[in-house]
Amino acid sequence: MRKFQVCVIGSSDATYEQYSTAYEIGKYTGTKGWVLVNGGRGGVMEASSKGAEESSGVAVSIFPFDDIDKANAYTTISIATTIGYARNCITVASGDCVVIVGGKSGTLCELTFAWQMGKTIFSCSWVEGVSMDYADKKLDDKREDRVIAVHDLTELFEKLDNFYEDWLSRRDN
Amino acid sequence: MRKFQVCVIGSSDATYEQYSTAYEIGKYTGTKGWVLVNGGRGGVMEASSKGAEESSGVAVSIFPFDDIDKANAYTTISIATTIGYARNCITVASGDCVVIVGGKSGTLCELTFAWQMGKTIFSCSWVEGVSMDYADKKLDDKREDRVIAVHDLTELFEKLDNFYEDWLSRRDN
Amino acid sequence: MRKFQVCVIGSSDATYEQYSTAYEIGKYTGTKGWVLVNGGRGGVMEASSKGAEESSGVAVSIFPFDDIDKANAYTTISIATTIGYARNCITVASGDCVVIVGGKSGTLCELTFAWQMGKTIFSCSWVEGVSMDYADKKLDDKREDRVIAVHDLTELFEKLDNFYEDWLSRRDN
Amino acid sequence: MRKFQVCVIGSSDATYEQYSTAYEIGKYTGTKGWVLVNGGRGGVMEASSKGAEESSGVAVSIFPFDDIDKANAYTTISIATTIGYARNCITVASGDCVVIVGGKSGTLCELTFAWQMGKTIFSCSWVEGVSMDYADKKLDDKREDRVIAVHDLTELFEKLDNFYEDWLSRRDN
Repeated sequence: MRKFQVCVIGSSDATYEQYSTAYEIGKYTGTKGWVLVNGGRGGVMEASSKGAEESSGVAVSIFPFDDIDKANAYTTISIATTIGYARNCITVASGDCVVIVGGKSGTLCELTFAWQMGKTIFSCSWVEGVSMDYADKKLDDKREDRVIAVHDLTELFEKLDNFYEDWLSRRDN
Repeated sequence: MRKFQVCVIGSSDATYEQYSTAYEIGKYTGTKGWVLVNGGRGGVMEASSKGAEESSGVAVSIFPFDDIDKANAYTTISIATTIGYARNCITVASGDCVVIVGGKSGTLCELTFAWQMGKTIFSCSWVEGVSMDYADKKLDDKREDRVIAVHDLTELFEKLDNFYEDWLSRRDN
Repeated sequence: MRKFQVCVIGSSDATYEQYSTAYEIGKYTGTKGWVLVNGGRGGVMEASSKGAEESSGVAVSIFPFDDIDKANAYTTISIATTIGYARNCITVASGDCVVIVGGKSGTLCELTFAWQMGKTIFSCSWVEGVSMDYADKKLDDKREDRVIAVHDLTELFEKLDNFYEDWLSRRDN
Repeated sequence: MRKFQVCVIGSSDATYEQYSTAYEIGKYTGTKGWVLVNGGRGGVMEASSKGAEESSGVAVSIFPFDDIDKANAYTTISIATTIGYARNCITVASGDCVVIVGGKSGTLCELTFAWQMGKTIFSCSWVEGVSMDYADKKLDDKREDRVIAVHDLTELFEKLDNFYEDWLSRRDN
């Protein structure tokens, strides 16, 4: 039976705050038995995978290039997409929800895809980067809702728990 | 010998101003003998292709879906990418430069790809949407330069002419 | 630490023999603690995933379309590639080796990608379809070796075990 | 108004016969005012583009990589797909019909995509490679028809002319 999949997006060159935040989020997904999905490279991606692996979770790398062995060292399962950065589209499509931690233009790209796909997006508003800039924002008029601002890890985990409960009950019906 | 390729990006549901601006840009590319590249759908894409075709130019549609016949009616050449919106990456990669006319989240997606690819980006700052919001902005610290603000069509055409001359001289060397 | 990933390819409309063979292979991957990767649809893909799930394994669906919930019912983790059948490339790139069970033109497509990527390919020569037609064949002169013919499940599992041991020792160095 | 698009597929390392055959086909497309589409690399792709350019035609390169300037020297318009060999899918989807000239595993990959898309496929049966091996063959039971064997250039051009007339009349209705 399919597991709940959380996609974490953020920059491959992370600040200390971005790295440690992503690590905690990854760790939480592992503890809960969820699957972590990310872009498979360094920085925020590596940090969240490290957290997932260290809590006995599963970290799936949606890696841009051909070599299944080049995703970061904390990858449990490596998807070698071979299609370069067009893979941004796959990364967010493969999350039941998306969490933004910091981020630059690559993360903004993933945010636009997530927005257009109608994904629920949680944004760490206290972390500098795309997650701060787009928290509580609308990208355009295609959706009624907003990028959901979360203000600390406690709030994020609570919101993820609630979203997961909804997902579970939708699935069981 | 390869022709100069101008990529125009903007929304599939265009305002009158966006439509007429894109039409004039397409017309200019046709007059100059350049190739127009866009996403092949409605709105700004259709308008720029209409302009290109009406000035005996070539409009290439980088269409998201499978059916070569479903690109807009002003398409000269249809590229059926089959890969959905991941094709945003292809659209901007296939321009020697990129021009933004209005735009929502899909256009923002294309802008992020263009930025990461190091493309020269001209943004119609007088047209509401992404082109107004990102004119003269940096998306992040990965590049030293900015999205180039152009303030009217005359300025845009002058800047395109200059860029084309540079492109020509680079090619001839 | 990344797990060993076995990609199984075959048709979405399977014969009884193809289905039961794929089921046994999936079951074996689960028993061994390996990750099964396939295209996420019916037939051979579903069968191998069913086997993996029923032996407490992990079945990853590299699904062609957008909807993370549309992969077959035995999917543990769903990768919604969004890029249609261009995803064939991703499916085989994400296996440390590839196993063919039956198959039609879609499977042949995946075989060509696997061949070009230099993947080790095991082909169930007793199962009608691509796996019978291409067992012990070369696709062209780009490789010295051949598609490896396996003649029954016992031989396949032995060869997979050996390949896995090699993979392990390469990784540990 | 969209032009008629002919996709030519074949190997990047062509024999003399493959090269000269592809050259003549490209030349014919240019003479007729059709658009030639191919994968943008060497060998058969280069040869057909050379023919098209030398007869004042248009050669569109569906290039696997990022750099718009790396397609072969006879490219009129370069589509930088950025997605690697998954672009095989785009090349054939962008032809109103497909012509095979020689070919190895990469060409076989494109043939499988063309088959699954329901494209009309003409195969140069006198040219060694995929075009000889698959002429007059069915890839599987998904289609009633066959890969159409053509036995010399005269027959090919006649068949292309007829197909074009049909395409024209379908479009005008």
